[in-house]
Amino acid sequence: MLECNWRDGKWETTHIKPYGPIQVEPSCKVFHYGQAIFEGMKAYKDEAGDVFLFRPEDNWKRFNESAKRLAMPEVPYEVFVEGLKTLVNLDKEWVKYGEGLSLYLRPFMIASENGVAAAPSTEYKFMIVMSPAFAYYRGEVRVIIANQFSRAADGGVGYAKAAGNYAASFYPNNLAMEEGYQQIIWTDAASHEYIEEAGTMNIFVRIGDKLLTAPSNDRILNGVTRRSVIQMAKDHGIEVEERRIRVSEIKEAAQNGELKEIFGSGTAAVIVPIKGFKHEDFKYELPVIENDYATNIKAALMDIQYNRTEDKHGWRVKI
Amino acid sequence: MLECNWRDGKWETTHIKPYGPIQVEPSCKVFHYGQAIFEGMKAYKDEAGDVFLFRPEDNWKRFNESAKRLAMPEVPYEVFVEGLKTLVNLDKEWVKYGEGLSLYLRPFMIASENGVAAAPSTEYKFMIVMSPAFAYYRGEVRVIIANQFSRAADGGVGYAKAAGNYAASFYPNNLAMEEGYQQIIWTDAASHEYIEEAGTMNIFVRIGDKLLTAPSNDRILNGVTRRSVIQMAKDHGIEVEERRIRVSEIKEAAQNGELKEIFGSGTAAVIVPIKGFKHEDFKYELPVIENDYATNIKAALMDIQYNRTEDKHGWRVKI
Ligand SMILES: Cc1ncc(COP(=O)(O)O)c(C=O)c1O
Ligand SMILES: Cc1ncc(COP(=O)(O)O)c(C=O)c1O
Repeated sequence: MLECNWRDGKWETTHIKPYGPIQVEPSCKVFHYGQAIFEGMKAYKDEAGDVFLFRPEDNWKRFNESAKRLAMPEVPYEVFVEGLKTLVNLDKEWVKYGEGLSLYLRPFMIASENGVAAAPSTEYKFMIVMSPAFAYYRGEVRVIIANQFSRAADGGVGYAKAAGNYAASFYPNNLAMEEGYQQIIWTDAASHEYIEEAGTMNIFVRIGDKLLTAPSNDRILNGVTRRSVIQMAKDHGIEVEERRIRVSEIKEAAQNGELKEIFGSGTAAVIVPIKGFKHEDFKYELPVIENDYATNIKAALMDIQYNRTEDKHGWRVKI
Repeated sequence: MLECNWRDGKWETTHIKPYGPIQVEPSCKVFHYGQAIFEGMKAYKDEAGDVFLFRPEDNWKRFNESAKRLAMPEVPYEVFVEGLKTLVNLDKEWVKYGEGLSLYLRPFMIASENGVAAAPSTEYKFMIVMSPAFAYYRGEVRVIIANQFSRAADGGVGYAKAAGNYAASFYPNNLAMEEGYQQIIWTDAASHEYIEEAGTMNIFVRIGDKLLTAPSNDRILNGVTRRSVIQMAKDHGIEVEERRIRVSEIKEAAQNGELKEIFGSGTAAVIVPIKGFKHEDFKYELPVIENDYATNIKAALMDIQYNRTEDKHGWRVKI
């Protein structure tokens, strides 16, 4: 793992050491005031044994946007991106070759000052931990479109990868699971009329041949996979609209047969097709279609990630 | 300090031991998914050396409401309230006698399972730590009424004492401090037209002789001090209205001279008078008045806390 501490207004020397416990005091600020942010990324191996990161600068930039919103110090490129490269290079044999295999990388930062005064911490700890990841398949995914709970407020921290956002989503998600749904598609807190994103995925809706996704704003995490899906879709000649999507529009499209696909995008599984959804009393099962966007775009993205195709957007970074 | 762990679906034996560091793994879920809640309370000593808690059951109940919303296990009365009593009893000499002196008590709970999957933890750690607290005075307090950032969403976790709520408020609060204001009065995220609460205080507004405070809802922490202030005000024959308060109403009252007081309520300082506020381009300095509600209600509450008066609502709990 990698560790770098921020004290007296600056980052100290980065250390790489074997994964192991850390000592913290019970009054460590992260436990009380929740300054904690993270990123999720992967390292992929190609047939020749070369190892690649995927758009790591995007994660670094987003990490620093999260840091800013949570009143935490930004992490320099050298510590974050070069740190990732050094770490993955050392543990190259942990990146396995094979469909869907990868090494999951988790850069994160926590407030580490001790004290129970409700104010930003003056000390922080940045770390990177890693763990082998398998092809990600958790069965069919059906979702509830939220009409009561919400994940983020306008003017809040929804766009940040802040630890507290996830804690806030667990209880509503547990209720959804009790009803037999695996995830929630969040809607805007003010009206619950527009869809936003799911717990760890951005959401795409295909109506007719058009691909729709909510615009990025201060409530939605601007996914690296989301951005890549939009580009891939455009490269494939698919019309993409980034705009607010009414729940009622999705339901109408379902009723008149125009709703072809809903899928989530995220680092964990690249793309997760949604098999069905529920909104209030309305339930719908998505049709099974040929030549679907989800499968095609996922394949195109994985070909880039695993170095099986030309990388014309310059997304791969060789270790 | 007190420590009690939740494992295999149940609370284990409570341990009391000297304050000291704990060992956690970097993948400890609290660092990544933010399941962390807390309470803030105080123990007071009277002239005779007896020690009292103030409405501890209220904190216990609120703690468990926070726990539920964050998908964490509820903590039994015996562990929380009896734990507090045992702990304070052991450290009685740390509760100092004197105006404004007290022992600050911080019960909190964190997710303690290791693993980076975004799902509720299966293990939790409940702890209580303590520290001597002094009469709390941090100079004059002026506030900005928020018109862009927000603290909580409808259907969110604003009513919970969740760590993530505080992290979310630091950055906007830093911006306010750069402008010379100490705190923010949050407004509703949907319209920014109604005031909600401040960073660690509920807010009261006196217009004419009427005392107004926002109703408790799912965005506002239902303060123990807030509840006590409302009761004290009623006991003093003051008319209290719990209702939505428009920012424009406060500004109009300021302009026509009806705005007499604004103050915050919270465990830390009981009551904090607000000297002035800013909203967009509108700035206002509160008048200095005689026989103000803030001073009178604060004195009445402290008399109860320090056992200097009859406790007709049964709020004091003797250790
Ligand atoms: C809330 C949320 N939305 C969307 C995503 C997808 O983002 P990315 O594609 O960068 O993994 C994630 C992260 O995985 C997330 O946590
Ligand atoms: C957000 C917030 N609002 C209000 C309060 C006041 O609550 P109490 O009176 O229970 O201390 C607190 C806690 O101190 C708080 O953290």
